[in-house]
Formats: sequence, C-alpha cells, structure tokens
Amino acid sequence: MINKLVAKIQKTNAPIVVGLDPMMKFIPEYITKKAFEQYGETLKGAGEAIWQYNKGIIDATYDLIPAVKPQIAMYEQFGIEGLIAFQKTVDYSKEKDLIVIGDVKRGDIGSTSEAYAVGHLGRAQVGSHSYYGFNEDFATVNPYLGSDGITPFLDVCRQEQKGIFILAKTSNPSSGEFQDQLIDGKPLYEKVAEKIAEWGETLMGDNYSFVGAVVGATYPEMGKALRKVMPKAYILVPGYGAQGGKGADLVHFFNEDGLGAIVNSSRGIIAAYQSAPYKERFSPENYADASRQAVLDMVEDISTAIAKR
Amino acid sequence: MINKLVAKIQKTNAPIVVGLDPMMKFIPEYITKKAFEQYGETLKGAGEAIWQYNKGIIDATYDLIPAVKPQIAMYEQFGIEGLIAFQKTVDYSKEKDLIVIGDVKRGDIGSTSEAYAVGHLGRAQVGSHSYYGFNEDFATVNPYLGSDGITPFLDVCRQEQKGIFILAKTSNPSSGEFQDQLIDGKPLYEKVAEKIAEWGETLMGDNYSFVGAVVGATYPEMGKALRKVMPKAYILVPGYGAQGGKGADLVHFFNEDGLGAIVNSSRGIIAAYQSAPYKERFSPENYADASRQAVLDMVEDISTAIAKR
Repeated sequence: MINKLVAKIQKTNAPIVVGLDPMMKFIPEYITKKAFEQYGETLKGAGEAIWQYNKGIIDATYDLIPAVKPQIAMYEQFGIEGLIAFQKTVDYSKEKDLIVIGDVKRGDIGSTSEAYAVGHLGRAQVGSHSYYGFNEDFATVNPYLGSDGITPFLDVCRQEQKGIFILAKTSNPSSGEFQDQLIDGKPLYEKVAEKIAEWGETLMGDNYSFVGAVVGATYPEMGKALRKVMPKAYILVPGYGAQGGKGADLVHFFNEDGLGAIVNSSRGIIAAYQSAPYKERFSPENYADASRQAVLDMVEDISTAIAKR
Repeated sequence: MINKLVAKIQKTNAPIVVGLDPMMKFIPEYITKKAFEQYGETLKGAGEAIWQYNKGIIDATYDLIPAVKPQIAMYEQFGIEGLIAFQKTVDYSKEKDLIVIGDVKRGDIGSTSEAYAVGHLGRAQVGSHSYYGFNEDFATVNPYLGSDGITPFLDVCRQEQKGIFILAKTSNPSSGEFQDQLIDGKPLYEKVAEKIAEWGETLMGDNYSFVGAVVGATYPEMGKALRKVMPKAYILVPGYGAQGGKGADLVHFFNEDGLGAIVNSSRGIIAAYQSAPYKERFSPENYADASRQAVLDMVEDISTAIAKR
C-alpha cells in the first residue's frame, strides 16, 4: 500500500491528503436541512448530513489527490450513526480509488492493539469466515505504550500489505510538554523517530517503509531533523493551513527525490467556501467547487516551494 | 461521578472493576452457536454472541462490584456491529447501576479531542437537540499530545460531572521504552503523573479528583511512588491476574484510607471457567457463575492484602 501511495502521489503530482474532518458548522445548510427533513434532528440525521457533505467533496477532488484522511473522532462523537457515516466515507473513497488513511490514533497493548489493527486494517475471524471491519488502508497509531502496542499493527500490516503512521511530533502548541523533553540530550520525539525507523526496517516497500510517521507542519526545524533520522519513513504532515503551516515551511519534510512526505489539510479544504479567498467566489451550494479550488491552490503552494529549494 | 465511584466501592467493599474485554475464544459454544443460528457467521452474529456473553457476566456479578470496564478495541474489531454490542453493554451496565469506565485510550488535540470527549462522555449537538453518543461514565485517555489533548476532556467532564483516567505507567513489558526514560533524573511517567495531579486539582470531587491515572499492577514499586505524586488521583490498575499482578503487590496503590485505587481484571474473571481453579467446578454453561466466584476470590485476595499491610 505504501508503493501504491507513492505511485498515486507521483501520478497526481500532489503530495497532499484531504482531511475529511466534518463539523456540523462546516456543512452547508441545504445539506443539513435535507438530512433533517429525512431523519429529524437526530444522530442519524447528523450522520446523513456528514456523509452527503463528504460525498460532495470526494466527488469534486478525487481526480486531483492520492488520498483522504478521515478523522474518526469527528464521526465517533455521534456514536454508532456517526461511525456508519465514517464507514460509508471510507468505502466510497476506496470506490473512487483513493487511499484512505484512518486518523484513529489508536494505541494499546498485545491482544488489544491487535484488535484495533484488525478493526481498522485487517479481518476479524467469525467462525469459519473472516470480515474486514472499517478497512482503511493506513491508520495512525500512538506510540506511548511502546513496542507491545506497535508490533500487533506490524503483523496485521504485513498480512494485509497496509501501513501505519506513528505519532512522533504532533502539530499542537502543547505537544512539547512531553514530546520535547530531553532524554540523554535527545528529545523524546527523536527517540520515538528512531524506533519508527527501526520498526520500519522490518516492513519495507520498494523505496519507503509501510511504517510512516506523523510530524506537525508547525515544527519545520524538527521536521528537517527527523527527515534524516528516519529516511525511509513517509511523513504524514498535519497542521498545514488552519493551524498555520505554509508550503515554504514544508520543503525539508521531503527527501531529495521530492517524495517522503504527504501534507494534510482539513478545514482549509473542506470548509474553504467559508473563508477568504474562496468565500467571495463560491456560495455554500458550491462548497465542493471551493474545495476543489483549495486543493489546486495547495498543490501549487507546495510544488512551488519544493521547486524553489 | 468520582464521588459515586468512591461510594460504590465503599458499599460493595470491592475496589475492583471487571474488564469486559470479550474475545471469541472466551465465549461458550452454546452462546456462539445460538447467535450464529440467528445471524449467521457474520459480524452481526459475532456482535450478538459478545453481547449475550457480557449480559450473562453482568447479571452474575453486578451486585458485587462497583464498575465495569469494557475495552472498546475488542468490539471495534468487528466494525459497526461490534460497536453496537459495545453500546448495548454500556447501556445495560448502567441499567444495573454499574459505573462504566470506557477503556478507549483516545487522545488527540483541540476540537478533535473535544469530539472524542463528546462521543464518550458528553452530548453532541444536532440542530436544536443534543444527544449522548456512547455515554460512558469515565474514559481512559492517552497523554502523549499534552495539555491540548486533555483540556477538552476536562471541559466535558466538568459539564457532565464525569471523569477520566490518564495513562501514566502502563502494565505491559515494553511500557518502559518511552515511559521510563529519564528527564532531568525523573522518568517520563512521573512527569505525566505530576501533570495528572495538576490537571486534577482543577476538577475535584469530595475527596478525590475526577482526573485519575492508569498505573499497571505489574509495576508495584512505581505504583508506590506515583501514589504520593498524585495523592488525589484515583488509580485504575490493570494487569492483575492474567498479566501477573497479585493482591499483595497492590497495597501501595491504595491510600491510608483504603481508597484511591481500583483494580481491573479482565480475562481472569470473564474467562474464569476456562482455567484453574474454576475449570474443575464450572462447565461452559455456568461460565457466569465461575465469573462470580472469581470476583469473590479477587475481592478476598485484595482485601486480605490491604488488611495485612
């Protein structure tokens, strides 16, 4: 799946991923209204609105991008009905041949971590049959519990030829509270990155590992350093756009081959129609066209920055 | 909710929580068979088997215990159908007046962490209505992302009078890889514990905070140290039984008042009928009675240890 991700990035010439992190306030009123007419102001109504909203964005952008990254929390908040919308979004994205990175940040130990890996990437055994659960292509994973939490994911990835992105340095302001603490002169996030490289060696694709890392766009210097610590890890970069990261900040997340990083934007694309410069040109009814334009602009921003370095 | 938890522990005289972490191999064949006859060897069939199995254990133990802790991964592996079984388990446990600790180990940042908090402890707004999602009483939370990940949980806890248990030192063998690393001479798990105490001060119940901690039974010395670092935090202690922790190891997780810790056992109780000493006395058809006996034995083991110290 990492080979497919690299191939799709090369084909689209777009090292970006659209974060499908729907919030009710992003969804144009005409969609919400229709969903509520059908199912009432209920969790089911919310789930339907989210799904229709996502479908519009996928339809308007799938030919430009290699991947989407639905953030499961945004669905989980609506309970089962929200998770049904998550499932529909994953399935539909795959129908459109998009790679799906499930941003689930799961992490536990032993058989429990295995169960998460099975639920998101693998197949659950039921009697003599086996079934995919949510069936994303990649999942994000939290490293706090150590190798016991990661190994079961590696096993499932090996079986299914799928991958994970492990949190190293997250994009938020307080990420340093624990991640930046120095251990023998090295920050914790670097220790984690060293382990990511080590875990990744056991599960290599053609040029990159099935084991990638998450490093926030908001910390470009750390991105530069970590790029060298784990040269074979694809870096998933959140924090572009709404959180403050810019194309020029991101060049050092990439390797010399122009590969090695994939930059996420969520709000900046899916809610583009709500803010400048798109607000002037796109009505809520054309929210998906605004998202398409925002994708084109983001690709341009990042490509220009890479070309200039 | 922390006051209710303390009161229930005092009433039952049982500082224990039953981990409802079902695996297909634990479920007696007569239950699985019936579920498969009804729904086939499908995810729905698996969900039904899990739910019926859990219901038996809850019915057989609810008068003896203050709380249950369903591990959501074990349900999530079966996708939506598994999560429906999780929801039924939460709802039914609450009907039986059990406190439900959702072992979800979620952790993200800002609005995403808020969405997890809403989904598990709070209410999602849909138009002019609001609805509970999974509606547990407590949730476990991963601290790797720092305060940005925790604060949204605190806000929802304040609103709903619910609580969280934050991972400090987990019970698994490799937990030390990152958690034990020394920072200015102090292990990371102690730094996390200091923050837990700090976060907890902002959200106090009568004697204990709504913000608790997870510290593994397999590390009794660390439990002893951490008890002092965060005297007002309830400690949720996994790793008893199957993972090797014993009652005698656990006395220092408790405060002088005999409170301050709640010990989890999962496999040792829910699959008691499969292993010694219960295997001899209980058939698979009586699995729930075996679980009841295992609860009584665990309470005895821990009470004796506390009384002796």
